[in-house]
Amino acid sequence: MTSGLFHVPLWIELVAAATGGIQGALFAAGIRDRRIDVLGVVAIGLTVALGGSLMRDVVLDQLPVVVSSEWYLLVAAAASLLGMALQSVLTRTEWLISLLDAAVMGIFGAIGASKAVAYGAGSLGAVLVGVVAAVGGGVLRDLMANRPISIIHVGTLNAAAAGIGASMLVLLLRIDVPVGIAGPISAVATALLRIAAVHLG
Amino acid sequence: MTSGLFHVPLWIELVAAATGGIQGALFAAGIRDRRIDVLGVVAIGLTVALGGSLMRDVVLDQLPVVVSSEWYLLVAAAASLLGMALQSVLTRTEWLISLLDAAVMGIFGAIGASKAVAYGAGSLGAVLVGVVAAVGGGVLRDLMANRPISIIHVGTLNAAAAGIGASMLVLLLRIDVPVGIAGPISAVATALLRIAAVHLG
Amino acid sequence: MTSGLFHVPLWIELVAAATGGIQGALFAAGIRDRRIDVLGVVAIGLTVALGGSLMRDVVLDQLPVVVSSEWYLLVAAAASLLGMALQSVLTRTEWLISLLDAAVMGIFGAIGASKAVAYGAGSLGAVLVGVVAAVGGGVLRDLMANRPISIIHVGTLNAAAAGIGASMLVLLLRIDVPVGIAGPISAVATALLRIAAVHLG
Repeated sequence: MTSGLFHVPLWIELVAAATGGIQGALFAAGIRDRRIDVLGVVAIGLTVALGGSLMRDVVLDQLPVVVSSEWYLLVAAAASLLGMALQSVLTRTEWLISLLDAAVMGIFGAIGASKAVAYGAGSLGAVLVGVVAAVGGGVLRDLMANRPISIIHVGTLNAAAAGIGASMLVLLLRIDVPVGIAGPISAVATALLRIAAVHLG
Repeated sequence: MTSGLFHVPLWIELVAAATGGIQGALFAAGIRDRRIDVLGVVAIGLTVALGGSLMRDVVLDQLPVVVSSEWYLLVAAAASLLGMALQSVLTRTEWLISLLDAAVMGIFGAIGASKAVAYGAGSLGAVLVGVVAAVGGGVLRDLMANRPISIIHVGTLNAAAAGIGASMLVLLLRIDVPVGIAGPISAVATALLRIAAVHLG
Repeated sequence: MTSGLFHVPLWIELVAAATGGIQGALFAAGIRDRRIDVLGVVAIGLTVALGGSLMRDVVLDQLPVVVSSEWYLLVAAAASLLGMALQSVLTRTEWLISLLDAAVMGIFGAIGASKAVAYGAGSLGAVLVGVVAAVGGGVLRDLMANRPISIIHVGTLNAAAAGIGASMLVLLLRIDVPVGIAGPISAVATALLRIAAVHLG
């Protein structure tokens, strides 16, 4: 397993924040059975953008990147506004919401599991942190939007996709595959499994 | 910006705890569409009194004041009992619940943003911590009471009030206004914006 | 009060994890008014098994045992699967769910309060951590399962049982009763009070 304190490059965190912000805002803007106004849409965008990263760092007992980095919140807010704007431009957004959800899960999961390994978590602990990071933003989103938690009531295979992707990452690191290769493989695998889960279930 | 480790005086934390406890208990006692018994009312009072402070310290990666201070829990419990008692004395409490909610948001927000600055958060990070502290107790209250999250579904301007108030505080600290002046200005501004938001929305 | 850094033996944590996993899975499998599939049942089992322990360590500002120990997650997962299997074998599980809930509350509460004392929390702080650990898994379970929070809406005496049990533990430690004796007394007292609460309320 890789040793030493590996730092996740900030730009990868920012890609995750941007993907999450767009996903959350699109998701919230698409809820038609309840009135959620413009600020509510942005707030749910921020929840998805910040949630997984925040829960990961809290569980790892670290000062969260969302607090220490000036860029994280800026990117998350800009992405949430972009997601809100996209909703009014695009006619059908279900496919985009689903695709972005898969991407969010893959990227946050891979960052979470690698950061946990870097901070000395065991293999199973790292898988757990990866899953928390992957699904955390979505769980908080559903709680804030007052909807059933999707990983329990809608698509439970989603959580399994996150678990399998995080396990792959930990296994690859254990056989000394560099994190720069293992991370993307894990993120893509999680996202593909998540997309397959939608089509299966 | 002020440097060095600024400690929020305990009495300010206790004022926040007391305000939150009364607010939460009054709010819970006022819910008529569900049966919440006496202990449930006190539990929701404690949730509001402890929630914002607890979430702030967890996000700042510190041992929470609610755990380290013997006084915090005592004051929170006494205030929750007082809130429950007030409900049975007053005939109409909506205005008081609203006023206390504004005060909770202002005080917790100002404490949160100043403490974040003191612990080395950047400007945007400090605003984020201020907002989490300001709205955290209310979000937990709504989750525990099984109601739609009010900052998303009822009054989204509330969260904006917290954001504006926390930003003012961080800006004032940056131009070297002492925290003893900047804090109260920020708390009052947040509370006034929150009250204005009720009348506007 | 006992001084020095007392470590909760891992096997006690694992007993708590196992009890929680079985309880959560049985509880989720017994929900008939909503479709929760096999993976959802396991996810809720894991939520109860991990929740109290995770919230306790987050509040105590420590790297969670659920992340640092390889065994915790294994036992929690195995117990969740066992709980799911038991549901299909037993005809009536309400009594078992209730009994396990009492046990979960007693064990997690005693571990939480003792660990808080060991990490320097004051007496009231330790009671608070004990209550958070005792009821945390159940609160997260209800949130994930999209049901009213049971300690607020169903049995508020449950939270009181946890508070009384944790207070007993802190008092016993303060009069120098060894934690190996005070812990079990507190756990049994909490569980008995919780069972009595069911029969009273």
